[in-house]
Amino acid sequence: MATTQSGLLIGQGFDAHRFAVAGTGRPLWVAGLHWPVPEGADAAAAARYEGIEGDSDGDVAAHALIDALLSAAGLGDIGSLFGVGATAHGAGMHGGDMLRETVAVLREHGYEPSSASVVIIGNRPKIGTRRAEAEQALSEAVGCRVSVTATTTDHMGFTGRGEGIAAIANALVAVR
Amino acid sequence: MATTQSGLLIGQGFDAHRFAVAGTGRPLWVAGLHWPVPEGADAAAAARYEGIEGDSDGDVAAHALIDALLSAAGLGDIGSLFGVGATAHGAGMHGGDMLRETVAVLREHGYEPSSASVVIIGNRPKIGTRRAEAEQALSEAVGCRVSVTATTTDHMGFTGRGEGIAAIANALVAVR
Amino acid sequence: MATTQSGLLIGQGFDAHRFAVAGTGRPLWVAGLHWPVPEGADAAAAARYEGIEGDSDGDVAAHALIDALLSAAGLGDIGSLFGVGATAHGAGMHGGDMLRETVAVLREHGYEPSSASVVIIGNRPKIGTRRAEAEQALSEAVGCRVSVTATTTDHMGFTGRGEGIAAIANALVAVR
Ligand SMILES: [Zn+2]
Ligand SMILES: [Zn+2]
Ligand SMILES: [Zn+2]
Repeated sequence: MATTQSGLLIGQGFDAHRFAVAGTGRPLWVAGLHWPVPEGADAAAAARYEGIEGDSDGDVAAHALIDALLSAAGLGDIGSLFGVGATAHGAGMHGGDMLRETVAVLREHGYEPSSASVVIIGNRPKIGTRRAEAEQALSEAVGCRVSVTATTTDHMGFTGRGEGIAAIANALVAVR
Repeated sequence: MATTQSGLLIGQGFDAHRFAVAGTGRPLWVAGLHWPVPEGADAAAAARYEGIEGDSDGDVAAHALIDALLSAAGLGDIGSLFGVGATAHGAGMHGGDMLRETVAVLREHGYEPSSASVVIIGNRPKIGTRRAEAEQALSEAVGCRVSVTATTTDHMGFTGRGEGIAAIANALVAVR
Repeated sequence: MATTQSGLLIGQGFDAHRFAVAGTGRPLWVAGLHWPVPEGADAAAAARYEGIEGDSDGDVAAHALIDALLSAAGLGDIGSLFGVGATAHGAGMHGGDMLRETVAVLREHGYEPSSASVVIIGNRPKIGTRRAEAEQALSEAVGCRVSVTATTTDHMGFTGRGEGIAAIANALVAVR
């Protein structure tokens, strides 16, 4: 297969996870950030900060970006790199650290992330309130500009009913 | 953060909105086009041209493209640019005008749309019957080639049940 | 409309299809590969290899890639190229052959696929077990590197309930 003339390769990523049951006390991590329960929140407000299920921290934004980067470089996917299940290499890892490890693998193989973007689809957390912070965390992890947008689905589908959260990402990777 | 060597940045966009209740008489706008009720349509046929809910005209294709363009340029998202709610800057605006304003912001910051693409997911309207017209409207608004494709979800999910309509977009933006 | 300075155009694709009813005996084709019922499988195991509904073989990965390539080149979509319904040009075609024909059309118009990527969203088949083979089949059909990743939706939505399967693709196409 001939290498692309432009030296740029494109990748697509998608991820979805279920929110943990309210009251579990699982920390909420999305877009490389921890979203702590606000001081003095009652049970209903605290439930909006219940975490996401998954072997790792369930950070769908980071996971979708990892798949976009790996697929751009043709280096497999998050499952082949980090494994699946409680004993997997990625178990308990935060999305930012998984992204950093992903980028190290890309660089070992002669690829450099060029730009990336992720859309977070869900009712919570309110990404817009910390978008600059999320973009900074993810951009530092990936080593290039990573943009974050967020939207809801107007109470439709599994994201609209609040069952879970999803993310769609794309990335450009340069061949060094 | 180093600027991308290639001078090209990638962005991803997604949007979903609910169809208005049949009989509301809300105009249907998608992909920069008005889809009027056909002459002599009975109530059942007219219901297929009921509009989309939203602060603006609910044009998911235009909105997903706006997020793809803004995220490629790292300039926020449709909510940060146009606001949310009935008093927002974007309230009542058509998708084409919102796209034009988005591109003006990109240019002020030294970015130029290079190409963009959007997939519309839903049972109606039948985009294929006016695809060339939709591509022309969106391409003129963005100032580069914008492609439009459309698909259904075989009666599955919220788009398949006809509750709403969604769009996934991507874009390349050049650094001037 | 000015041609993009970079000579690279981006496209987005999406497709979703319903799984055939268990026991129909429809062959399962996804990502350019046939997924045969394993030797000695009982009825429950065999049901996991029931095929996908559609005029062609229902290969959502190939179809999403076709739309990504066609939209990058601004040459319509899978419906305009292959038709819809049992008498359509694409009826009974396999995804790999549809991809080859798509790329031939791109080349006739002066475009060359540069790289492409597809995410398959569904409970089955287990793409990870044959990912290298799927990437080889699709890459040979398209004539450039095509990456394949796969994910589930944690039992949420129509893919999580096992009603159907979906795919999101993107592509870069070079102007010759
Ligand atoms: Zn994940
Ligand atoms: Zn919208
Ligand atoms: Zn299809």
